[in-house]
Amino acid sequence: MSFKNRSLVTIDDLSNGEIEAVFALADEMAESMDRQIDVCHGKIMASLFFEPSTRTRLSFEAAMHRLGGNVISVSDATSTSQTKGESLADMARIVGAYADIVVIRHPWEGAAQVVANYAGVPVINAGDGGHQHPTQTLCDLYTIKKERQTLEGLKIALWGDLKYGRTIHSLIFALAKFGANILFCPSPGLEVPQHVIKKLITEYGGEVETTSGIEDEERLGPFPVDAMYVTPSSSHQLAMVPDIDLEVELNTGVDALYVTRSQKERFTSDEGQLAKKQLPVVDKKLLERDQFKRTLVMHPLPRVDELAYELDDDPRGMYFKQAARGIPIRMALLSLLLGSREGRVPNDSDSAMPLIAYPEYSRGSALTCPNPSCVSVQASEIKYLEPEFKIVNRDPLTLRCVYCEHGFEPEYVASSERQEGSPGDNRYQSAGSRWARKLSPENLIAFNTEAEARSQGYKPGRYAKAPNNKGL
Amino acid sequence: MSFKNRSLVTIDDLSNGEIEAVFALADEMAESMDRQIDVCHGKIMASLFFEPSTRTRLSFEAAMHRLGGNVISVSDATSTSQTKGESLADMARIVGAYADIVVIRHPWEGAAQVVANYAGVPVINAGDGGHQHPTQTLCDLYTIKKERQTLEGLKIALWGDLKYGRTIHSLIFALAKFGANILFCPSPGLEVPQHVIKKLITEYGGEVETTSGIEDEERLGPFPVDAMYVTPSSSHQLAMVPDIDLEVELNTGVDALYVTRSQKERFTSDEGQLAKKQLPVVDKKLLERDQFKRTLVMHPLPRVDELAYELDDDPRGMYFKQAARGIPIRMALLSLLLGSREGRVPNDSDSAMPLIAYPEYSRGSALTCPNPSCVSVQASEIKYLEPEFKIVNRDPLTLRCVYCEHGFEPEYVASSERQEGSPGDNRYQSAGSRWARKLSPENLIAFNTEAEARSQGYKPGRYAKAPNNKGL
Amino acid sequence: MSFKNRSLVTIDDLSNGEIEAVFALADEMAESMDRQIDVCHGKIMASLFFEPSTRTRLSFEAAMHRLGGNVISVSDATSTSQTKGESLADMARIVGAYADIVVIRHPWEGAAQVVANYAGVPVINAGDGGHQHPTQTLCDLYTIKKERQTLEGLKIALWGDLKYGRTIHSLIFALAKFGANILFCPSPGLEVPQHVIKKLITEYGGEVETTSGIEDEERLGPFPVDAMYVTPSSSHQLAMVPDIDLEVELNTGVDALYVTRSQKERFTSDEGQLAKKQLPVVDKKLLERDQFKRTLVMHPLPRVDELAYELDDDPRGMYFKQAARGIPIRMALLSLLLGSREGRVPNDSDSAMPLIAYPEYSRGSALTCPNPSCVSVQASEIKYLEPEFKIVNRDPLTLRCVYCEHGFEPEYVASSERQEGSPGDNRYQSAGSRWARKLSPENLIAFNTEAEARSQGYKPGRYAKAPNNKGL
Repeated sequence: MSFKNRSLVTIDDLSNGEIEAVFALADEMAESMDRQIDVCHGKIMASLFFEPSTRTRLSFEAAMHRLGGNVISVSDATSTSQTKGESLADMARIVGAYADIVVIRHPWEGAAQVVANYAGVPVINAGDGGHQHPTQTLCDLYTIKKERQTLEGLKIALWGDLKYGRTIHSLIFALAKFGANILFCPSPGLEVPQHVIKKLITEYGGEVETTSGIEDEERLGPFPVDAMYVTPSSSHQLAMVPDIDLEVELNTGVDALYVTRSQKERFTSDEGQLAKKQLPVVDKKLLERDQFKRTLVMHPLPRVDELAYELDDDPRGMYFKQAARGIPIRMALLSLLLGSREGRVPNDSDSAMPLIAYPEYSRGSALTCPNPSCVSVQASEIKYLEPEFKIVNRDPLTLRCVYCEHGFEPEYVASSERQEGSPGDNRYQSAGSRWARKLSPENLIAFNTEAEARSQGYKPGRYAKAPNNKGL
Repeated sequence: MSFKNRSLVTIDDLSNGEIEAVFALADEMAESMDRQIDVCHGKIMASLFFEPSTRTRLSFEAAMHRLGGNVISVSDATSTSQTKGESLADMARIVGAYADIVVIRHPWEGAAQVVANYAGVPVINAGDGGHQHPTQTLCDLYTIKKERQTLEGLKIALWGDLKYGRTIHSLIFALAKFGANILFCPSPGLEVPQHVIKKLITEYGGEVETTSGIEDEERLGPFPVDAMYVTPSSSHQLAMVPDIDLEVELNTGVDALYVTRSQKERFTSDEGQLAKKQLPVVDKKLLERDQFKRTLVMHPLPRVDELAYELDDDPRGMYFKQAARGIPIRMALLSLLLGSREGRVPNDSDSAMPLIAYPEYSRGSALTCPNPSCVSVQASEIKYLEPEFKIVNRDPLTLRCVYCEHGFEPEYVASSERQEGSPGDNRYQSAGSRWARKLSPENLIAFNTEAEARSQGYKPGRYAKAPNNKGL
Repeated sequence: MSFKNRSLVTIDDLSNGEIEAVFALADEMAESMDRQIDVCHGKIMASLFFEPSTRTRLSFEAAMHRLGGNVISVSDATSTSQTKGESLADMARIVGAYADIVVIRHPWEGAAQVVANYAGVPVINAGDGGHQHPTQTLCDLYTIKKERQTLEGLKIALWGDLKYGRTIHSLIFALAKFGANILFCPSPGLEVPQHVIKKLITEYGGEVETTSGIEDEERLGPFPVDAMYVTPSSSHQLAMVPDIDLEVELNTGVDALYVTRSQKERFTSDEGQLAKKQLPVVDKKLLERDQFKRTLVMHPLPRVDELAYELDDDPRGMYFKQAARGIPIRMALLSLLLGSREGRVPNDSDSAMPLIAYPEYSRGSALTCPNPSCVSVQASEIKYLEPEFKIVNRDPLTLRCVYCEHGFEPEYVASSERQEGSPGDNRYQSAGSRWARKLSPENLIAFNTEAEARSQGYKPGRYAKAPNNKGL
């Protein structure tokens, strides 16, 4: 499959084989940087950054220049027409008429998908709120791969803010795709969101073992593990869920420790206390432990206090290499999507785990995504953007927004079939009722609350009081 | 006449033939975009945006890159030396020493003219306050021309904020130059300024028929026409002013409907109420009317609520084409002004209506432009910029600022002749008096108010109480 | 010595011969601007401006484009990861991995040195707080040289804000290096800082004669001279310090008058009154004096009110030429540091005054630089940056920060030798005591205050009450 004219919104947009092809081309480009200057001659990249960034923006722009291409750039949200209330779709259509490829960072989750839908040229997501940051993930995987030759069966520990770190969410799915095992070591209160865990289990086929209740802290000191993802392709010992012996696992060594800063700018007001808390620092002392002897210490940067400067000259420190490798990775990606270079996808490209084709939610009501950062609920976007969901589970009923990919569990349902037949008898029922489970997807109407159902003219039905999704 | 080293500050800087030459070159460039990459190789464009913009800035920068040129860019007023109190003239001289051509957007009206006066290289006005935005106008005209083959005799309706929409003012004069007829459909309170109307009548030779008093609303529903400009070259029926039959005219169909958003950021505090008012939306329902069957729906973008998204896929919707055509138009313009390409001005270039050579106001007093947004009254500019005016009318006495082009009617006058002869006898008279009308332009001294006259040592003369300009 | 891969942080980083080589290459480039377009083809310059700037940023970017190179740019401090608390060292390492050369402006003094230490590629200081701005200095020298053929023995008057004008500090040292004489004409309260004067005397070998007490104002009207630097290579008459006859000197003519604006944005709150004071304006009337007949009027721009617009067309006005010459100067410098061109250093390059090799202060205490704008005391930098000082004088004891180059006089000292031998007997003594003067540099521990010494466990010693540095 050709890369030409495709977009990269989430890491799932590339198969494992395609990712390997990007890596192979990045290798080639890194070795002959000076000879790439005509690859994208005459092409224009639009670099649209609606959130602060040095690294990612400059990295994309440098990559495009190394390929001989040109750049038009927005580096400041306040200097654009978005302050006049312009929609992402309008901006995408227009910038797509100016440039040959668009790179976008935006605070709204799902924003890159909307831009990709309307631009008419390839779009690369350079970070959309807390959702995804797939090119960072490519740099991360590429770094591990170059140092360890493979990703399969590795043990990767993720440390710090696993809630708001968007690079983390992209990375988790990518590691799972490539058969790595993941240790979750979140800062308290900043655990991996449930929708990520659920997607991991459902779509990537592994198991997630939570370790709460086990006396981890005693065993591992400043390095608590609160959950572990075990890939289906992992060795026997690891796969013995639920009897996994974390201590044994850890003592055989961690392959990479991926540290992140607290994304305080995304904290809710309730999380203000977390922001003040001093996090344990990853430093030489911590890395003296046996399991870290050969560990790659990684960080997407910028760091604040969570990673000590004394590791900068330690051979395990990979974070500046990660950043530097962003240039060949992004050069490879830009030249592939622009069709200026071809990618050689290896034969085993079919090893990419196919994503499940969930049924679509046929919009029979005014249901909106409950994620306040989702692009689909913003004032400038609701004028044209219809909410769209996939039904990813029936028990409990779970919908996933196609834009921000957040999953949620509506509490009440109705049927569009009954509604059409007997307009005066629109009833809503509990989403946890057997009645609800029998509804076919194309007839399903969901409501987040009873009030929502009533406001649309529905009355409580016979099964409205049945146990709801939460089992109450 | 060559385009090389000329500036484009207002649409009047180009004759009709020259505009046709820009269009012809734009056609050529649009058809061979990939082959223009050496046209401006080695040239530098300075892109100076002192007001928020995505579209226009990126469009100019993309155009320059498509020509193989380079760009230096200011996209944020707060990051420049203007915050240190630097004048436009100083900035212009310096940037003119760095770049081969300058593109400027600025909130002050007349700013582009000042930059053009001092830069020493060609300057393109990319919008100066509420004054002009001539390259937007070129895109607008180019779009109509490409869809209708001609501009002459067309009926173009302008809708929305006709007061602050600077694209509107440039467009009005351009349409008049090319012999189109204009229907004014302003949002209430946002009518076309009187100085625009006056210039239209005086310099473009057509007639403006106001329709207030006619029961337009009843006839046209949500689409009131408050005035109509009838070009002198229009067909007999239209020219029958004042007995013009609007209904008949409209029923024969509107060629283009040019919609604009309310420029709320320019509203005065008195206009706060207007900002809250819901405007009628141009949507499919409105366009069901007979007169809109073949109407081109245009918008300079960004849109907010005034234009429905449902029109995006309607064949009448032209606004994304308008934006996309900004690239070839700006490529043509940049290459012409830089002298990298020659323009082929058609033989009928003399059809451009010559502007009237108004007498200059010989500055005998401290008269300043009453427009608070005019570049000539700003603190950093008054140090070196002398106010200059043209005397565009004698009854009532009307001056026009050469920078912002606002016209105004001073209420009192004196004579510099009398003043020199008898210094103790400096008298001011009503501008509406016969005495005033007899003054020769080179002796005329004007005052906006009696207080102004007195503060400069003048005393009321015999005709000071005569009817003033306003006829009171 | 080759220029390749070197950085330019202060003007002292270049010898006189190397500066002449830059000028020679700038001459060549100015004469064949169009033929330089392949010199830096494929190279990337990172342009990092963390303070407002039009002129300097655009000048560097235009220079790089004239050489055929590319630019990645940060023009706004608020759009970067520094808002997330990232250190300069991290930023430098990463940008150094993206670009071939880095240009940085930053509000912290010494910031460019830190970036140069970590970037791994050449770094050019485009202004670091009130410290230095060496490329502006090169433009200034180049302009004088082109107009007067030499710098040696010239009389250059510096006018206005000599305290915060960073261009002034770079210029003073450069003029001294080239054997010019300097007249200091500060705005009251904005005199040249003492650390500049001291460095001038100690390292450049000339004499500084203060003129306070002399009735300058009566003699020179609006043009007070408060001090004069006399170069050691100057003619006999000038060198007759202290019997220098200012009036005679001035009557023989001033070669250049370098005017600066008040850098109000750097004023302390105590200096608020100064900001309101009206400064005398350099205008045609002032320049009617005999000594200004052939004077070059210079200004680093932007100007505010200190330099009249009426001089813009005066042949003595050099300030727009200064700005325009920034392009060939920066082209020459970029191509030299990138190794794209070679510099021809003249044989007399040894005439550069060698800087004194001061002993290092061996850090035996927690001494920090007392300059609050120094990079070494900023929250994000102290995590990794150890303060470093040179001992530039023993009587009074004076340390100079290696980053911001501010000199200061610690009041108390201790010895690391005694400390190691008898840990319970750590004593501090007055820095002005004979005991202190006998300490060898490697044993010296300094404290700014007694409280600082006590807080580190030191007790007052026998000579703690001896006269301190200030002679009290």
